[in-house]
Amino acid sequence: MNSAFESFFQEHMSVGAPFLGASDDYAQAKKVIFGAPMDWTVSFRPGSRFGPGSVRDVSEGLEEYSPYQDKELAAVPFFDAGNLLLPFGNVNRSLELIKECTALIVRDGKIPLMLGGEHLVSWPAIEAVLAVHPDLVLLHFDAHLDLRTDYFGQAFSHASVIRRLFDRDSKIRVYQFGIRSGERAEWAFARERTKLFPFEVFAPLKHVLPEIQGAPVYLTLDIDVVDPAFAPGTGTPEPGGITSTELLESILLLKEVNLVGADIVEVAPEYDLSRRTPFLAAKILRELLLF
Amino acid sequence: MNSAFESFFQEHMSVGAPFLGASDDYAQAKKVIFGAPMDWTVSFRPGSRFGPGSVRDVSEGLEEYSPYQDKELAAVPFFDAGNLLLPFGNVNRSLELIKECTALIVRDGKIPLMLGGEHLVSWPAIEAVLAVHPDLVLLHFDAHLDLRTDYFGQAFSHASVIRRLFDRDSKIRVYQFGIRSGERAEWAFARERTKLFPFEVFAPLKHVLPEIQGAPVYLTLDIDVVDPAFAPGTGTPEPGGITSTELLESILLLKEVNLVGADIVEVAPEYDLSRRTPFLAAKILRELLLF
Amino acid sequence: MNSAFESFFQEHMSVGAPFLGASDDYAQAKKVIFGAPMDWTVSFRPGSRFGPGSVRDVSEGLEEYSPYQDKELAAVPFFDAGNLLLPFGNVNRSLELIKECTALIVRDGKIPLMLGGEHLVSWPAIEAVLAVHPDLVLLHFDAHLDLRTDYFGQAFSHASVIRRLFDRDSKIRVYQFGIRSGERAEWAFARERTKLFPFEVFAPLKHVLPEIQGAPVYLTLDIDVVDPAFAPGTGTPEPGGITSTELLESILLLKEVNLVGADIVEVAPEYDLSRRTPFLAAKILRELLLF
Amino acid sequence: MNSAFESFFQEHMSVGAPFLGASDDYAQAKKVIFGAPMDWTVSFRPGSRFGPGSVRDVSEGLEEYSPYQDKELAAVPFFDAGNLLLPFGNVNRSLELIKECTALIVRDGKIPLMLGGEHLVSWPAIEAVLAVHPDLVLLHFDAHLDLRTDYFGQAFSHASVIRRLFDRDSKIRVYQFGIRSGERAEWAFARERTKLFPFEVFAPLKHVLPEIQGAPVYLTLDIDVVDPAFAPGTGTPEPGGITSTELLESILLLKEVNLVGADIVEVAPEYDLSRRTPFLAAKILRELLLF
Amino acid sequence: MNSAFESFFQEHMSVGAPFLGASDDYAQAKKVIFGAPMDWTVSFRPGSRFGPGSVRDVSEGLEEYSPYQDKELAAVPFFDAGNLLLPFGNVNRSLELIKECTALIVRDGKIPLMLGGEHLVSWPAIEAVLAVHPDLVLLHFDAHLDLRTDYFGQAFSHASVIRRLFDRDSKIRVYQFGIRSGERAEWAFARERTKLFPFEVFAPLKHVLPEIQGAPVYLTLDIDVVDPAFAPGTGTPEPGGITSTELLESILLLKEVNLVGADIVEVAPEYDLSRRTPFLAAKILRELLLF
Amino acid sequence: MNSAFESFFQEHMSVGAPFLGASDDYAQAKKVIFGAPMDWTVSFRPGSRFGPGSVRDVSEGLEEYSPYQDKELAAVPFFDAGNLLLPFGNVNRSLELIKECTALIVRDGKIPLMLGGEHLVSWPAIEAVLAVHPDLVLLHFDAHLDLRTDYFGQAFSHASVIRRLFDRDSKIRVYQFGIRSGERAEWAFARERTKLFPFEVFAPLKHVLPEIQGAPVYLTLDIDVVDPAFAPGTGTPEPGGITSTELLESILLLKEVNLVGADIVEVAPEYDLSRRTPFLAAKILRELLLF
Repeated sequence: MNSAFESFFQEHMSVGAPFLGASDDYAQAKKVIFGAPMDWTVSFRPGSRFGPGSVRDVSEGLEEYSPYQDKELAAVPFFDAGNLLLPFGNVNRSLELIKECTALIVRDGKIPLMLGGEHLVSWPAIEAVLAVHPDLVLLHFDAHLDLRTDYFGQAFSHASVIRRLFDRDSKIRVYQFGIRSGERAEWAFARERTKLFPFEVFAPLKHVLPEIQGAPVYLTLDIDVVDPAFAPGTGTPEPGGITSTELLESILLLKEVNLVGADIVEVAPEYDLSRRTPFLAAKILRELLLF
Repeated sequence: MNSAFESFFQEHMSVGAPFLGASDDYAQAKKVIFGAPMDWTVSFRPGSRFGPGSVRDVSEGLEEYSPYQDKELAAVPFFDAGNLLLPFGNVNRSLELIKECTALIVRDGKIPLMLGGEHLVSWPAIEAVLAVHPDLVLLHFDAHLDLRTDYFGQAFSHASVIRRLFDRDSKIRVYQFGIRSGERAEWAFARERTKLFPFEVFAPLKHVLPEIQGAPVYLTLDIDVVDPAFAPGTGTPEPGGITSTELLESILLLKEVNLVGADIVEVAPEYDLSRRTPFLAAKILRELLLF
Repeated sequence: MNSAFESFFQEHMSVGAPFLGASDDYAQAKKVIFGAPMDWTVSFRPGSRFGPGSVRDVSEGLEEYSPYQDKELAAVPFFDAGNLLLPFGNVNRSLELIKECTALIVRDGKIPLMLGGEHLVSWPAIEAVLAVHPDLVLLHFDAHLDLRTDYFGQAFSHASVIRRLFDRDSKIRVYQFGIRSGERAEWAFARERTKLFPFEVFAPLKHVLPEIQGAPVYLTLDIDVVDPAFAPGTGTPEPGGITSTELLESILLLKEVNLVGADIVEVAPEYDLSRRTPFLAAKILRELLLF
Repeated sequence: MNSAFESFFQEHMSVGAPFLGASDDYAQAKKVIFGAPMDWTVSFRPGSRFGPGSVRDVSEGLEEYSPYQDKELAAVPFFDAGNLLLPFGNVNRSLELIKECTALIVRDGKIPLMLGGEHLVSWPAIEAVLAVHPDLVLLHFDAHLDLRTDYFGQAFSHASVIRRLFDRDSKIRVYQFGIRSGERAEWAFARERTKLFPFEVFAPLKHVLPEIQGAPVYLTLDIDVVDPAFAPGTGTPEPGGITSTELLESILLLKEVNLVGADIVEVAPEYDLSRRTPFLAAKILRELLLF
Repeated sequence: MNSAFESFFQEHMSVGAPFLGASDDYAQAKKVIFGAPMDWTVSFRPGSRFGPGSVRDVSEGLEEYSPYQDKELAAVPFFDAGNLLLPFGNVNRSLELIKECTALIVRDGKIPLMLGGEHLVSWPAIEAVLAVHPDLVLLHFDAHLDLRTDYFGQAFSHASVIRRLFDRDSKIRVYQFGIRSGERAEWAFARERTKLFPFEVFAPLKHVLPEIQGAPVYLTLDIDVVDPAFAPGTGTPEPGGITSTELLESILLLKEVNLVGADIVEVAPEYDLSRRTPFLAAKILRELLLF
Repeated sequence: MNSAFESFFQEHMSVGAPFLGASDDYAQAKKVIFGAPMDWTVSFRPGSRFGPGSVRDVSEGLEEYSPYQDKELAAVPFFDAGNLLLPFGNVNRSLELIKECTALIVRDGKIPLMLGGEHLVSWPAIEAVLAVHPDLVLLHFDAHLDLRTDYFGQAFSHASVIRRLFDRDSKIRVYQFGIRSGERAEWAFARERTKLFPFEVFAPLKHVLPEIQGAPVYLTLDIDVVDPAFAPGTGTPEPGGITSTELLESILLLKEVNLVGADIVEVAPEYDLSRRTPFLAAKILRELLLF
């Protein structure tokens, strides 16, 4: 490591067993994984702080080869930077650190792949990517709209992460897929301001692919877009979601787009004895790495 | 409260945190939720006594607004009466109390929405509704036929709840959906005496809707009609069931009918770390409240 | 019991509560259930040693009557021989005992139905059946190819069980269904040497039925062919699998074939609070018994 | 088997894997184990129906040799009759069956060792022993007095099991040890009518041994006499109990007395991942068998 | 309710099922229970937000009568105000609300009994009590010193709660009992500034009782002072603690002192299947109520 | 790293997050931690393969400072080499790798501290130490004697680990503490050939300290020597053990001896939701590191 990321890395990251197949050469990496183990604004059930670790743990149960793409991780240079050391309970400082980490990776011409943590961690990461790609297209897979103006009086929470992006740039291009929950006001906002595709992901995503072709794309994936049958390890298990197969197939559609960043959030492994939730996240991450 | 229900309520109900959005005005309520936390005739695994509490607990993770119906609970006056205080192990007295509670709610012109408890609790509730609506149509969503003449010599058990209704009125109109388990004799009885639609719910329910139009309808929903992938928190996890999405869509079909009562039974939260089973029950209950 | 199996049974089996509806007459039985509770070569998470016991335990929650086949277990003479007493950690001796047990059952003209244990237990069982039916067709339902030449230097492990069969007979007819994971080299081997049908089971199985008509058929069913939503109690919960309904329907297709043996492996109940994984295995076993 | 117990056994018992070291010769047995898997009057948390099975399951983790007594089970002829098939939810019939089972064992001159189930199962067992030994001394180890006149209006429940014995014979000699919970009225009753030793077991038991020497003694052991740190698998985990070591040492004191029957109740294994609760019960049972 | 507390209560508290035996008359109450379900600065494992609810839930498994004090709750007028509605992730506002709530209760001449939540919730509560009782004696039962100047740069966290009190009043009288963990600097600080009694509670507490006689006393009880064998449901299970019996006996010593407030914190029920941790907290609370 | 250990390390170890306070300088280290995650000969319940990882995970919940020794880890140079990559199910090769790893550490003049894994892993480690210290004194803390000649016909299993040492050197000095289980033959062997101290650890250890003064000492600690109340996360939860406090105090006695190696085995974290078992192991390891 020879970039500014190096000193940040020394000071702010804790390193453990890396994701399956990760290289230890940051310089050569095209993509960089990092964890943002924050869950302090969560309202219902905490535990997503354990998400990044669990995704790496179960990755050893996966194969490096993907039959979906006929490719294997050995051929893909990526780096796993470990987890950010975030100050427990300090929302502002945590968001700053996530933003700085993402910005440094982007500055080095690499693609950040963040593992949450609660959904609020996506906000600073997307902000950092927006700074470089102001014409960003945001793909938002989620059960919830996350468009509240505030939550119990708090502007910054997992329930407002997408709304906060509109504070900065009211023209931001947001596509929402798989949504099945929100307040009346959020639905009204979404109908006006985002491209909203409730309940489904694959079909509408396929439909809109042509219009986002070429644009820089960021994917923010709340694992609860998947039905809790397939991803029980999450804070708010909203029934009526898509299958893990539909998610996999939707992710594979993104091979065609210009992906400049992505995150997978809200994996809370303690609620899933089988570990299929982190396993699904790890499999999605493998496919994203193989693009 | 100014009806006979009031004194019953004071003596026989234990009150805790109510269901999301409940009003505290019984008089104005159109619908009344109550819990029947009984599981003493259960043969395989007990625990449905914790069902009503768990459904209320997780309801705070839901939104009051339903995107399925574009309505919200704030606009619907309903009361949550808490749980019946049932004498542990005394089947007869428990059934009497459930019947009395249901009868009082019905007498006040309100719609009872009961949370079980094992399926046997549906029997006294339906009896109370039948007393007022002798032409009742019963919609029965379940994995099991529940048509045994007896179970280990017991006439009153969760395995005989539908059969007991025929003892009183051999002409009762019962529609059974999603069934995938029963003794040979039960299947024979069903083929003769009920309208039986095994394995599926949505398509056959849509098909029969015209013929039940106008009639008073009671829905008894055993959560195990749903596949245990989607509702693992139940006593007898019979594979091969419908998805939670199919259940939601089936419930929404009932907006059109004259629903005079309903129950959701056999939620046993201890077997479901993710809590998606009570979450599903709570979501179904929200939709029923919004009709 | 009057065959050589009898003395083997006295020495090497531990007997507990038998599977639902089992007869205690070995001589009259057409099918014989036994457990092979071995999990010592498992790489990711052990626990399939508890599989056979859990399948029998939950079988009492099933009905003896199958609405899928309109038949009941009472009409089918089968014997449950209990579990093999395997020497913990001794792979070779364990495989010998499994082979001997299977061979004795086959020699008596009966159909062996083995409950695993890890997938490696299938190898000796299939070898024993191949000794009598050299023209055997092997149907392999699994998430994984299990075609490694070795695993961490070990020739005999759950990851190589199908590959080992080719060591003996390079012409063995293997059909693989539902596969979604493997190393690049395994996929290459499969494309050349087996009939490979990734991701799906029902449609391709129906398609190939005519070509296996009449041949002796052995089914080796790794429960992880099913998506972990439906079968979370297994060592390696690979997302993107089939539903339990698709598995049931696929099994029912086999009524038509000449089934000479079968096994259900990799049920690890500790990871499944709801017990729907052993419940699914028990239901599949009931259907196989009813053929 | 050639006694009246035999036909009872055929009709009313379900047999599974027996307790470690059990003989299959009823006639020669001096002691007979049986399970009473009833939990239908339980108020707080059900699950003791799984107690007997779990105690047998874990017994294979014990050694047959006791270093406490320098004896081994091989030298002791005892029979394990399996579990009573009790009609779920039918309290009266269940109690009758337990009484009949116990009476038959006692009539054959053997010592009944019953595994519960909830504490109410002790009542019919003790009644059956009292019929033969009217001068019985009852040793009651428990966290709770179980002396309520009724519980939510029910005369027969786990909370009244000791009180019911006084209904029949107001002079019954009851010694209570380790008690730390009860209503004011129960404490008042105990202070007048029983020999009450709150909080402790070993010291007071040692103290009273001389006065019960020679008398026929029945031990009813509610596992919650032990602190929930040592026995977490029970319905009502009352803190402040004795250690498992104190229980073991207390049990060993009973080698000297004329034990004519015993039971171990309220083991509810689902609340104890480690299984140390059934393990403790199994160890106590081994020591009782070795007397 | 007629005090300023009433309007605070309406706006900031969520009400559920109250603690065993609670009266609904705030005016007559001598003691007031409330919950502070905050866990956002927790470093190791979150979940103490579920503490207050779990303590109330299990309280129905306790008796109202205490054999330790020969008194019952019916004779003690106390009010359960429910839980504070705290803004998730907002530390400052949460601490303000706790302080305000405590201050209002104290102003009405009542004794606050707070259920946490992480230990940081004690800081504002103690501050509010100190405002009225500047000569307060603080009794601190804990495994950890909680004397860090900061934690990962945060001044306000569970690890600094006692240290923060010294910021305000360097002469505050703090007695620490049962301590067995801390940084070197914390131990140095403690040896100089507090009365420190490591590893034990009962004996040293008994020893110091005379010197605190008459002074206003506040007890802050971190449940992890108890060994995790007895209280496994907590974030940081530090071995080597006291028994639950020693804690009970220590609490009973406080009957003699002038207790003006108390809290029980760090109960995290999700890590304790047996629920003995909230059960212990509930039992301690019962004894405190009975003083 | 510049020794032969280096190349072994590169080939055979998997590295993850190290133990609290570990240095990354092997050369300077006095003590070396490594994990032997093997559980393939386990008879009752597997899962100790997850022991080493869990001990490291929870170590971050400990402090680096020990109040028992008034020392901190920062002052102690030790290295954490990660876990051995063992071939699943291959007992012989696994034991060879453990022996080689231990031998290399010992050859470099460092003290090996091994984390198991099942108890069989101690055998090769002790063999490697014996090769250098033929006058070794072995301290064995355990619930079980582990002196079987064989187990189900296997000479090498967790049940024979101490017996195997006598095969090589019938004069080996073995002290056994805390034992409370074994076959009659094992007890007989122990009474003749080892110094046996059943049930207790601290008092007898203190007693024998003078006679082992100066000799090279190896400690093999099976965590089940502790009562399962304090260490539930283990395969065979034998009640009647010592407290975690007694274990801690016993360990501290060893400060005085010439410790040349140690291991902590049989931690199986899956059976302990609270994680107090790996926490205890980590605390013991911290104290051993601080000597």
